[in-house]
Amino acid sequence: MSTEKRTPLDAIGEFGLIDRITGSFTHHNGTTVKGVGDDAAVIRINEEEHMLISTDMLVEGIHFNLMYAPLKHLGYKSVVVNLSDIYAMNGKPEQITVSIGVSSRFPAEAIDELYEGIKKACDVYGVDLVGGDTTSSLSGLVISITAIGRVNQKDVVYRSGAKENDLLVVTGDLGGAFVGLQVLEREKEVYKANPSAQPDLEGYDYILERQLKPEARRDVIGFLDELGVRPTSMIDVSDGLASEILHLCRASKLGCHVYDEKLPIDPTTYSTARDFDLDPSTCALNGGEDYELLFTISQSDFDKVKGSPHMTVIGHMVEENAGIYVIDRGGALIPIQAQGWNHFDRSE
Amino acid sequence: MSTEKRTPLDAIGEFGLIDRITGSFTHHNGTTVKGVGDDAAVIRINEEEHMLISTDMLVEGIHFNLMYAPLKHLGYKSVVVNLSDIYAMNGKPEQITVSIGVSSRFPAEAIDELYEGIKKACDVYGVDLVGGDTTSSLSGLVISITAIGRVNQKDVVYRSGAKENDLLVVTGDLGGAFVGLQVLEREKEVYKANPSAQPDLEGYDYILERQLKPEARRDVIGFLDELGVRPTSMIDVSDGLASEILHLCRASKLGCHVYDEKLPIDPTTYSTARDFDLDPSTCALNGGEDYELLFTISQSDFDKVKGSPHMTVIGHMVEENAGIYVIDRGGALIPIQAQGWNHFDRSE
Repeated sequence: MSTEKRTPLDAIGEFGLIDRITGSFTHHNGTTVKGVGDDAAVIRINEEEHMLISTDMLVEGIHFNLMYAPLKHLGYKSVVVNLSDIYAMNGKPEQITVSIGVSSRFPAEAIDELYEGIKKACDVYGVDLVGGDTTSSLSGLVISITAIGRVNQKDVVYRSGAKENDLLVVTGDLGGAFVGLQVLEREKEVYKANPSAQPDLEGYDYILERQLKPEARRDVIGFLDELGVRPTSMIDVSDGLASEILHLCRASKLGCHVYDEKLPIDPTTYSTARDFDLDPSTCALNGGEDYELLFTISQSDFDKVKGSPHMTVIGHMVEENAGIYVIDRGGALIPIQAQGWNHFDRSE
Repeated sequence: MSTEKRTPLDAIGEFGLIDRITGSFTHHNGTTVKGVGDDAAVIRINEEEHMLISTDMLVEGIHFNLMYAPLKHLGYKSVVVNLSDIYAMNGKPEQITVSIGVSSRFPAEAIDELYEGIKKACDVYGVDLVGGDTTSSLSGLVISITAIGRVNQKDVVYRSGAKENDLLVVTGDLGGAFVGLQVLEREKEVYKANPSAQPDLEGYDYILERQLKPEARRDVIGFLDELGVRPTSMIDVSDGLASEILHLCRASKLGCHVYDEKLPIDPTTYSTARDFDLDPSTCALNGGEDYELLFTISQSDFDKVKGSPHMTVIGHMVEENAGIYVIDRGGALIPIQAQGWNHFDRSE
């Protein structure tokens, strides 16, 4: 490399890097409706619909650890996290491509297991595997998946559409995947110290499944449609609620006030977090990998969603100058800062 | 891994693995016109057009070596190899997504260089960067690109459309990228032995460019259109002519006879191959990474292409039982076997 200046990647972070590298790109094609900067790219394909394209790369040792992630679950999860991005645009995924780089320490049977999980996800979510690439890698396993979906032009929901006073809604509950990961990491350490020890995973089913085999919220897209509610903005919770709130605020040029006491946290998540001396609210805000949907709705839609067991109003959008805060049980305003997965802190 | 049987990946190879893992998948969506098994997937998007989706993964140490591949060229090439797949369907690429996994040994300035090359390719070929993912990796650099294109439904060309007696045509010349790689590998060894030695690359410009900064044959798609020739089948030459011929024959259920003396080989490729004690025809047949287009045309179109400096008729399609052979200058029939990049032979 002929570069003289060397700026460490961890000094700028993933989102800083994305801004840095994509800033100079321009578009050449009128079919490109939306490029970088949302959960999926949007491409015009006919008079009524847009195509949605989303892609993710999962790297062994960064995103998953094969000591505790069964390959079949890993295959399933790899698909689901991509489909979640298509749902976050209010779309319907129809196809995926799957590329893998794999070292020869994996036998063909291991790859079979991975693809069993991929196939399972395809069957559950009704998507077609239409392509990919298969190559070797010098170290571990790398999985790169692209999801392709469709949405009616009038239904597409961007991160940027939130309005002041809109309600902020999240589906399901938060923090479970992160706390599940803590359990798995603890058992990994126990195993490393004593390989004959049996892992103690009893009672953790829910949070382990949240970590190892999450689902994408296709159902919520259906519920919203049935309720006649169109979110004004939407994103999926992959990097953590705090990070996603910042994305919605940044794209919509708004602030946001979120109420700590409203954060939906499952009892197992709560008690396990406490066992690990973790603050459950912090796990919910910064844990990541929940793959829930976070969206804003007009206040006039409140009556339609308030009875749903799948959705919780956790705050509301405010003008940009009013800031981005969690309001704790004592009424104190705590600034929201992204503490999501900054993978560049963890590499070699 | 709970697997008991362990079949080494190098025992089944890349194409064996692809067959193995994709065999059990079925399609759920009527929009999926063609899935795995051609240069790109084909998706119905409106009454007139199909969308084309192609994806490739490039892994450091397998597909490129940063000791001699400048990052800017690597970015350019990563895009071009994907666009080549869209052209091989007779389509027009319009968008790409780019995902990278990168270890923290790379400074941000190195990533800037990579994206300079990506941007250059986007500008040259008129495609839009619309998404991607950026993550860290524990070892080297991984690049995964998905190209999205369009083609009129009546113009799409598959691997499977060749007919008996069709002429086999290849664009440009072959083997240059492979011989260029040999030069780079030699200079790498010289450098490792004596880091103060200057690389001796004079006179190799053409084949080094073939290796480091190849172009996709967008021009040929235009020429064919102007000549009024629609190929009956087509594929791009990424893994090597022999391997691509086998793909066309397998998909079209035909045999093929190719004439050694017709193989287009550049004089620099020829003489450099000789210097390395390599058979130039073998380099042309098995070298790979030429990113030329290989296609079949009806005999009735011969007069239209015979004067083109960009295309060479190298053989013709025969019935399946007549086999797949190179006919050498002495008239002997040599069976064509895939000796393309079998990456699984080279991993750890």
